[in-house]
Amino acid sequence: MIIDKLYKKVSEMGNVCVGLDSDLSYIPFSYYRWFERDEEALFNYNKRIIDETIDVAACYKVQIAYYEALGIMGLRVYKNTVAYIRSLGAIVIGDVKRGDIKDTAKKYAKAHFEGEFEVDFITVNPYMGLDSLDPYLNYVENDEKGIFTLVRTSNMGAHDIQFLEDKSGKKVYDIVGEKVQKLGEKYMGESGYSSIGGVMGLTHKEEAKEIRERLNKTFFLVPGYGAQGGKAEDVSLLLKNGNGAVVNSSRGILLAYKKEENRGLDFAKCARYEAIKMRDEIIKASR
Amino acid sequence: MIIDKLYKKVSEMGNVCVGLDSDLSYIPFSYYRWFERDEEALFNYNKRIIDETIDVAACYKVQIAYYEALGIMGLRVYKNTVAYIRSLGAIVIGDVKRGDIKDTAKKYAKAHFEGEFEVDFITVNPYMGLDSLDPYLNYVENDEKGIFTLVRTSNMGAHDIQFLEDKSGKKVYDIVGEKVQKLGEKYMGESGYSSIGGVMGLTHKEEAKEIRERLNKTFFLVPGYGAQGGKAEDVSLLLKNGNGAVVNSSRGILLAYKKEENRGLDFAKCARYEAIKMRDEIIKASR
Repeated sequence: MIIDKLYKKVSEMGNVCVGLDSDLSYIPFSYYRWFERDEEALFNYNKRIIDETIDVAACYKVQIAYYEALGIMGLRVYKNTVAYIRSLGAIVIGDVKRGDIKDTAKKYAKAHFEGEFEVDFITVNPYMGLDSLDPYLNYVENDEKGIFTLVRTSNMGAHDIQFLEDKSGKKVYDIVGEKVQKLGEKYMGESGYSSIGGVMGLTHKEEAKEIRERLNKTFFLVPGYGAQGGKAEDVSLLLKNGNGAVVNSSRGILLAYKKEENRGLDFAKCARYEAIKMRDEIIKASR
Repeated sequence: MIIDKLYKKVSEMGNVCVGLDSDLSYIPFSYYRWFERDEEALFNYNKRIIDETIDVAACYKVQIAYYEALGIMGLRVYKNTVAYIRSLGAIVIGDVKRGDIKDTAKKYAKAHFEGEFEVDFITVNPYMGLDSLDPYLNYVENDEKGIFTLVRTSNMGAHDIQFLEDKSGKKVYDIVGEKVQKLGEKYMGESGYSSIGGVMGLTHKEEAKEIRERLNKTFFLVPGYGAQGGKAEDVSLLLKNGNGAVVNSSRGILLAYKKEENRGLDFAKCARYEAIKMRDEIIKASR
């Protein structure tokens, strides 16, 4: 089960998921100018970040939207980036948030678990229902693949659907979380977690604790560290013995070189220092 | 407003949305063998279907999952297909069902409303909340673009989230439908419909009528005709004076040539006959 591999990485490396939501505008000009084409520049920018964080990151998350926005060229960089991460034996999450049914979902499964865009995990959207996840399950069972289903996000708009309450006062995201955990029980790893994980935004103290206890078999992908305001203490409440979740930071790591104290330093080294700092903050907070 | 262009197309052509969920396996061998490369074969297959239905279809819907599954090559075919449709002055819906927040949603908006993958409408997923739609609104207001937000689907799994009821007995999809219509009020066309539309699966008689009356400013994209079991009578209940919705058929049209009675006929002509038949069935049922 892929989740055991991720669990082991977290034990060894800490909880940091390096988010490669990379934009051409993030590349320092001093590096960008060495390349003739944007495609080379963007891939090599990613490659340098990966090379410098490979022994610090539990995994990588590549946000496909940033590459789709660049058209075919961007998707080639996406393809080469996820392939490069996998070639190093590291784990990569394709943050695609796809969601569709039947034959269409089968095509998305094929797109992201086979062929050119193959990754280890993808993120998925549950709005159409749990049957929209069916086509991925065969890959989870037989091909060392996993999914992170959106459960609860931290944006204001989360109130529109996720926070609606049913007659018994249960919130939509609680219902989704329970359904996801139940589905995941068929795909448990030896680590005690399922290869069907959940995307879990940071929340207030009491709720985080309660969520971690109730969804005790669900591994979390937690977005929003750093640039989006998440802090180590908030994260620590979603962990159990320091494991059970990876925490993503994208701009916080990618743009660390823009911090005043890093002036003149190499962008990829700055990314490394930032990832180490984040790793240690989370370890410290979860003791 | 793009919705007025679509409304006009429906008035002139009927309600058929030709779904280009095209798969290499759909191409008749007698046609496929003329091409050296799959890429050429798939694009020309789409092109012939488009050429034969251009005066019958209100619009086209291209399901990106089918193309993503073929990697970079497939996405080039997607790009060339949507560009070809637009070059003919026809309307194309990119069925991408993307859903994300903030900067990521901005990138999806850029990906599908500008540049290589530019389409007229995209489908979006509302699970993360209405603020996840914000980045598209600027394009709706200024660039003749529109969105169809998932509201209610017809798969079994729809019960998992969409059919949950809040304390007052209101279903999640009703709440979503109302929120989408409210958001859409800022983007109304002269036709009386908004460029913020909804994806509305076929449903039973009473409910369909009630939905059409309540969401009276929301233009619907209705999937599931033909191959997925939808019938003209069901569709007619979602129409008002024959307009207010387009109805998608993909395999029903693409694979019409496989019907016994069409043996030996050209696949694109069969697609045309099937689209005409569907158009006329819906017109007849909605009188």
